[in-house]
Amino acid sequence: MTAKKPPRLRIIPLGGLDEIGKNMTVFEYGDDMVLVDAGLMFPDVELPGVDLVLPDYTYVLERAHKLRGIVITHGHEDHTGSLPYLLRDLNVPVPVLGSKLTCGLIKVKLDEHKLLKAKLREVKPGMHVSLGVFGFDFIRVNHSIPDALALLIRTPVGNVLHTGDFKFDQTPIDGQAADYAALSKAGRDGVMLLMSDSTGAEKIGYTRPEAIVGATLRRLISEAPQRVIVASFSSHIHRVQQVCDAAVGAGRKVVVTGRSMINNTKIARELGYLHIDEKNIVDAYQAGDLPADKIVILSTGSQGEPLSALARMANGEHRTVSIERGDTVVISASPVPGNEKAVSRVINRLFKAGAKVHYRGVADVHVSGHAATEELKLMLQMAKPRYFMPIHGETRHLYSHARLACEVGVAPQDTFILENGQCLEIGEKGARISEHVESGVVYVDGLSVGDVGDAVLRHRQQLSNDGVATVVIAIDTQTGKLAGDVELVTRGMVLGSDSDEVLEGAKARIIKVLARTQREGATDPGVIQHAVREAVSQYIWERARRRPMIIPIVMEV
Amino acid sequence: MTAKKPPRLRIIPLGGLDEIGKNMTVFEYGDDMVLVDAGLMFPDVELPGVDLVLPDYTYVLERAHKLRGIVITHGHEDHTGSLPYLLRDLNVPVPVLGSKLTCGLIKVKLDEHKLLKAKLREVKPGMHVSLGVFGFDFIRVNHSIPDALALLIRTPVGNVLHTGDFKFDQTPIDGQAADYAALSKAGRDGVMLLMSDSTGAEKIGYTRPEAIVGATLRRLISEAPQRVIVASFSSHIHRVQQVCDAAVGAGRKVVVTGRSMINNTKIARELGYLHIDEKNIVDAYQAGDLPADKIVILSTGSQGEPLSALARMANGEHRTVSIERGDTVVISASPVPGNEKAVSRVINRLFKAGAKVHYRGVADVHVSGHAATEELKLMLQMAKPRYFMPIHGETRHLYSHARLACEVGVAPQDTFILENGQCLEIGEKGARISEHVESGVVYVDGLSVGDVGDAVLRHRQQLSNDGVATVVIAIDTQTGKLAGDVELVTRGMVLGSDSDEVLEGAKARIIKVLARTQREGATDPGVIQHAVREAVSQYIWERARRRPMIIPIVMEV
Repeated sequence: MTAKKPPRLRIIPLGGLDEIGKNMTVFEYGDDMVLVDAGLMFPDVELPGVDLVLPDYTYVLERAHKLRGIVITHGHEDHTGSLPYLLRDLNVPVPVLGSKLTCGLIKVKLDEHKLLKAKLREVKPGMHVSLGVFGFDFIRVNHSIPDALALLIRTPVGNVLHTGDFKFDQTPIDGQAADYAALSKAGRDGVMLLMSDSTGAEKIGYTRPEAIVGATLRRLISEAPQRVIVASFSSHIHRVQQVCDAAVGAGRKVVVTGRSMINNTKIARELGYLHIDEKNIVDAYQAGDLPADKIVILSTGSQGEPLSALARMANGEHRTVSIERGDTVVISASPVPGNEKAVSRVINRLFKAGAKVHYRGVADVHVSGHAATEELKLMLQMAKPRYFMPIHGETRHLYSHARLACEVGVAPQDTFILENGQCLEIGEKGARISEHVESGVVYVDGLSVGDVGDAVLRHRQQLSNDGVATVVIAIDTQTGKLAGDVELVTRGMVLGSDSDEVLEGAKARIIKVLARTQREGATDPGVIQHAVREAVSQYIWERARRRPMIIPIVMEV
Repeated sequence: MTAKKPPRLRIIPLGGLDEIGKNMTVFEYGDDMVLVDAGLMFPDVELPGVDLVLPDYTYVLERAHKLRGIVITHGHEDHTGSLPYLLRDLNVPVPVLGSKLTCGLIKVKLDEHKLLKAKLREVKPGMHVSLGVFGFDFIRVNHSIPDALALLIRTPVGNVLHTGDFKFDQTPIDGQAADYAALSKAGRDGVMLLMSDSTGAEKIGYTRPEAIVGATLRRLISEAPQRVIVASFSSHIHRVQQVCDAAVGAGRKVVVTGRSMINNTKIARELGYLHIDEKNIVDAYQAGDLPADKIVILSTGSQGEPLSALARMANGEHRTVSIERGDTVVISASPVPGNEKAVSRVINRLFKAGAKVHYRGVADVHVSGHAATEELKLMLQMAKPRYFMPIHGETRHLYSHARLACEVGVAPQDTFILENGQCLEIGEKGARISEHVESGVVYVDGLSVGDVGDAVLRHRQQLSNDGVATVVIAIDTQTGKLAGDVELVTRGMVLGSDSDEVLEGAKARIIKVLARTQREGATDPGVIQHAVREAVSQYIWERARRRPMIIPIVMEV
């Protein structure tokens, strides 16, 4: 008889590694499992037609009976956005834990998805909650949304400190600095593993305090001769607060535009995170009655989104506001990687419309929400972890963070850079990377969740680059002979000035090929389709150096 | 009888405004015309399938008989790349003027396009050349390619100083500082109009000297335990020189990879711009015989181009080089706006392959080729222009540059921010913006030049986002009745897990619509096609919330 081996702690990031987005991490020990964060990612241009990207959480669904809870570190969509999909797919009720604002923002999304029975549980910094064998202590950190939490996760094999997204701001807008005492105490008590936000690991130094932006906003708003329009992330409540304060301080009213800005400011005011007197807010329709120098417009669109309020204003397509010569526009954000061109386009249009435009790089209108190198090292120094796993970042950020850990004394062999779906196992004998579990991405496309795969995306890429050519032929099933004309229809491709001649040439080539297949006695539509596709593809390559998608359709008559 | 009015100087930028790329400017006076630069632009993701973007130079072609010459400021493709197309379209021989390296690089491109008869004329800083009524003085400036020139253009109404792309480097690699004496003399003699590079107008301060990069390269190469791979722009000969010098200084051989890097280093060595002893260059195939710590590989791919040498190495797809653990990779460039994600992807892959990666932001491995704010103001102070036109930049850069000009004393009403195709007219009574001439963009797509238009691009966008559905029906021309089955083929779209049922539903909808058109007596294929398209589009929207391109084909039997 051998003694039963104790289970190991298994930590499996299902998202958030080698990417900025869709954060989701499994913690598993024996018959208990918890999930930290359930985020989504917005697709880039290489995923045409895809609306949202979710982590593949099959692993969680298959172990749903073990799932004791889902803990959300803060209310950004890359940490909350896959919750509606996950909760619908789970056939067991699971508590979802988050701070007050986090729960408030989640509730709106769950309501939109008609998930009215979700068990949302509000937690506070300093609280302790048990979920199966796991104990959670919640620790206040700073970020670009209020009420962000780090998690001290007590497990049977030791304590894990998960930072969530964080930075350290010594003069935060809400007066709530990070809880250095709790972080340091965790370090003194022993952190077996630190999992820490890597987004800012390439930024040298300290992230500057949010209050700096307030000074710029006050100056720009008080000096502006006419209207001021400020675009920002709608969840950045502290930024919104600073805009409101600067506006009210300059004797101006605030107009809120853009769906998410309207929703989030409403929730934040209801929950006590945003403070502005009702009398200082005016409706967009009433704003026209006020002098231009008495207005500040708070807007969405800081990422250049073409349908956002700011882009519509810049293009003269907004229902109530259009940019006028002398307006001041502040883009109080920095472009998320991939959005640079879209943001630039909006800035260019605003200038052309006659606005004075202030944006990051030319004015102090934004600071990051993520810790830079010195703050990351400070976190490492306070936590003094046995093991280290950089999380939340592209591979370049994870490696840069690992280098910082090495600088403050974490041995390279104790640092684990994982891939999504890889499992870090920690037991009595130490930590090691074990197997890959089922993981990956799930695309949301219109009403479809998970149906879009690589083949569909490859087809879309080909369609997008080279267009499509549909060939229809009617074949007499008796003789294998062509019956009637060949139809050739192209879209999204060009055949030059002699396009009619090229099309005729293609038809001639098809007829030639059909004569051959007929000679060879081919009557199988599959064989004929293949021959037609090859012939047309080859012909168009010769004439146009393009490889459109060829759709051959054989009608049997 | 009235005195004949003297002609006015007309300056028309056909490209280079509100964009970084395809620079081309017309100077016209009476019966004489010259062109400064003839560039192209590389398309971004919003132009799927487009290979190159050219300025629409119809205006030039229609006045070809007046064209006295084309003056090229330097050898970058955004200043030279449309030359092969323009020279082919011009039916008169026109001299092309440029410095030695510029002409060398142009010649290679013209040879590729089999334009062997082009009249290339080499000019030198300090030279004066007359082209019709225009006189050109060539003035040395610094840039990220050797042999860049500013142009002092003497016209009947006054002197125009056109900076080309420039920066001021007090310790340039080739020892050739900008000719401050010539610039200042131009200012003293009177510059009527300054046209100045705006690319760096948002960068505060001075662009740091190129030599700084050399110090980093020497350190990284001498400390590297194994191979070093340096990716850079192949036309940045001074950067390449610094890589070669650092390699030779550390006792390493240089391997050159990537087609443009091989071509450009060859030309630069032949023309005396790049100095490295033949014995220090080894072939990629021979490099395997050398110890890893004796090799530096010079590579293309600094922009993350998926088919470049560096991307192939990172993906293990390069013929002779693949990244090994312990290799050092230096990306000695910064991403051109729009390329950030592609560059990041390559960096991430290099880290995963085990390389130590050094790139802009984390190491001093790149400096810009464009003047920052203080240099731009220095240029303005030396030129002391009567009028100012910011050129070469997006609208945001042009406006930022205009603000700098205002700071050094150019009155806002004397600053002209134009759009491509707008004409600045200067006569005895001053300068004013006059009409828009025919201008715009021409897309090169495979073998086609100018056939791709907005409709094709819109089709490609739709195909890319929502895919395509082809519907084929055979109609009995006698009765208007459906003959045989309905064929429905989709690509690039998803219909969910019940896709068969959706397809059947679509066919049923089509049959219903055809019954209606038959009842209504419709036999016109156009009418039937329209009805089928509407029905299928509506049905797919209901079932999938998607709007694929519908291609209805009616076969008459």
